[in-house]
Amino acid sequence: MDIAILIFDNLTALDAIGPYEVLAAIPGATVTFVGETRGIKRTHHNGSLGLNADRAITEVTRADILVVPGGYGEEQVRANPAMLEWVRAIHATTQWTTSVCTGALVLGAAGILDGLEATTHWAAREQLRQFGATPVTRRIVEQGKVITAAGVSAGIDMALYLTRRLAGDDVAHAIQIVIEYDPQPPFDGVFEHAPAPVIGLLRKMAARRMEMSR
Amino acid sequence: MDIAILIFDNLTALDAIGPYEVLAAIPGATVTFVGETRGIKRTHHNGSLGLNADRAITEVTRADILVVPGGYGEEQVRANPAMLEWVRAIHATTQWTTSVCTGALVLGAAGILDGLEATTHWAAREQLRQFGATPVTRRIVEQGKVITAAGVSAGIDMALYLTRRLAGDDVAHAIQIVIEYDPQPPFDGVFEHAPAPVIGLLRKMAARRMEMSR
Repeated sequence: MDIAILIFDNLTALDAIGPYEVLAAIPGATVTFVGETRGIKRTHHNGSLGLNADRAITEVTRADILVVPGGYGEEQVRANPAMLEWVRAIHATTQWTTSVCTGALVLGAAGILDGLEATTHWAAREQLRQFGATPVTRRIVEQGKVITAAGVSAGIDMALYLTRRLAGDDVAHAIQIVIEYDPQPPFDGVFEHAPAPVIGLLRKMAARRMEMSR
Repeated sequence: MDIAILIFDNLTALDAIGPYEVLAAIPGATVTFVGETRGIKRTHHNGSLGLNADRAITEVTRADILVVPGGYGEEQVRANPAMLEWVRAIHATTQWTTSVCTGALVLGAAGILDGLEATTHWAAREQLRQFGATPVTRRIVEQGKVITAAGVSAGIDMALYLTRRLAGDDVAHAIQIVIEYDPQPPFDGVFEHAPAPVIGLLRKMAARRMEMSR
């Protein structure tokens, strides 16, 4: 089972690594990190982490599973015809096409979400409409062979969900135990439930982000 | 605030990336990935992902926060006097020294857990005793300035816990929402609760791992 994970500069690392850690543990799975070119792609946190693309898109012509993560760099991917064409071409070969976070906007720009329900990071949800998709607030949305996941950490849940489909409940359960996924988050992680001071901080963080990207 | 994350070949990517995604989002945080040498370190899933160490241990002489992830490669780190010496030297400068998963065994080998309670991946818990530590089954264990976390995904919870201490509840809550951490795991992720067929699969996966590493 060949799994391709697309990476690019200004990606959100956990979007890609959450699913990776789960899917790579499936017996028989082979994972390849793919970039527009081979080499290191850096994360949106000031480029403080580099993930290596071992293959260029020109070297990968099919996949059983495609994972498209998000992060601010998805805008550059959406503006890149060669990368969108690759996503479309790989999607034509997949058993499952998946996204995490704003990776859904890349699937949208590639024309894959037209007429489908989909999810993405809460801050980007309304942007799905421009691609003909209907945003929904579930953490995982399955439509035919397309699965979209909510923001960042939702990729872990999506990958366990997909593992059940691919390899059955016992394998998915075993992998959940291997990654000791017994989450104990300190707060309620849903944006819509956040108290005013936290909303204020989120606004400040978003403003700083816009300032930095100018 | 300077955060150093140690990486090495045969690491478990999510051990490092879970905390990274949280801690790098703290306003004013600077994260550096550090290896014995600069360059790409590959994960335990057949090396299918390379993370880049931007600095060698000889280039990093202090940190406010040290994060030591785990993975099968921790055995080579424990057998490497220069890396253990670096861990000890950085620990002498930190505000917080942390581990995820079997990264605790590296802290142990560096002499940092002697006389302390600690946690690690469930499969490695008893190994803590050889370093004078008392294994406990909590997901996060704080002892003075040392925080150890349970396996793999526990690093996300540990980093949010640490963020509360470093930056307060509102910042930690905001970051939890940024990474949309509203976990919806499909199963119970605790090894001790697993049904017999899942235990059988875990044994098979461990046996295959030992076969591969021969």
